Amino acid sequence: MARRTGRRPGNPDTREAILDAARAAFAERGFDAASIRAIAATAGVDPALVHHYFGSKDQLFLAAMQAPVDPRELLPKVLAGDRDGLGERLVRMFLGVWDSPAGTAGVALLRSAVSNEWTARLLREFLTTQVLRRVLDHLDVAPAELPLRGSLVASQLIGLAMMRHVIRLEPVASASPETLAATVGPTVQRYLTGDLPV
Amino acid sequence: MARRTGRRPGNPDTREAILDAARAAFAERGFDAASIRAIAATAGVDPALVHHYFGSKDQLFLAAMQAPVDPRELLPKVLAGDRDGLGERLVRMFLGVWDSPAGTAGVALLRSAVSNEWTARLLREFLTTQVLRRVLDHLDVAPAELPLRGSLVASQLIGLAMMRHVIRLEPVASASPETLAATVGPTVQRYLTGDLPV
Repeated sequence: MARRTGRRPGNPDTREAILDAARAAFAERGFDAASIRAIAATAGVDPALVHHYFGSKDQLFLAAMQAPVDPRELLPKVLAGDRDGLGERLVRMFLGVWDSPAGTAGVALLRSAVSNEWTARLLREFLTTQVLRRVLDHLDVAPAELPLRGSLVASQLIGLAMMRHVIRLEPVASASPETLAATVGPTVQRYLTGDLPV
Repeated sequence: MARRTGRRPGNPDTREAILDAARAAFAERGFDAASIRAIAATAGVDPALVHHYFGSKDQLFLAAMQAPVDPRELLPKVLAGDRDGLGERLVRMFLGVWDSPAGTAGVALLRSAVSNEWTARLLREFLTTQVLRRVLDHLDVAPAELPLRGSLVASQLIGLAMMRHVIRLEPVASASPETLAATVGPTVQRYLTGDLPV
């Protein structure tokens, strides 16, 4: 078998113990409050080993929740470009992920989040800290409005994934990404930068 | 125990056999193509007994999918009133159902739809034939656009339910119905009656 490149996989039991401790910490305390030090202590290993196996706290979080993609690799292209096209680019990126093999993992995550409170919390932390925060940081809108704007964007995008990949309601289920970007993009744009009556 | 009013409950085994046959027929053939006659045949009963136990095909469908509400009772209030307020009234009605005890059944339905293809199909038929068709029938927009408009509305509303009641992302999770009607209502209105670039 070909040797995988990148970080050494390490002892599988130790890795699993770290991931279990990480899942618990991130779900219970949230991404920001969870610490590598505390996760390492729960797993009975040195914090340096956690960094050695998984890298940064962001990377450990993505590994713990089995995220099929790393938003840090995808978002720069969305965030580059004109402000008025942000909504459409975000919808295109989102559909690109969900229409790819990663979408299967996305459906599995949704499935788990719907029936398991811990996965729901991890998904919430993922949306907030890995996706929305990075998008919202780029906006010149009132900081107090950011959480509402972010959760409205999330509601439209998760609903799109639900209709396209889970409930499969036509024509959204098989519409082209272009059609959906053109119709749903303006919604996301309004939630991000439009005047909200609040 | 107080006697329930309305239709007589009938033989529980017979009722269950009819509901099983109905679920299968509605999921496999869709609401429009499924017939009471065929459902009765599968259950081994006379079609008249199906009507006697459950009433109309709509009522049998709602019973088969254990729908927590009957849209025919809720939609008239949404559809009455000015065209420009339709989106906001639809969001208010939707939140009213999901924020009520019926919301628990709604979450259970979503949970089942995410893991079970049959429930997903029933939910799709419910959205299409019991909700969207009745709303879209009231619009003076190009008939060819109606399916896309309907499925876009469904994507935003189901996403709202997911964020508010399943993933519970704040502040959408605890925002007032007024705030959500004011922010999400215009999205639904645009999907229903706005110019869509398609």
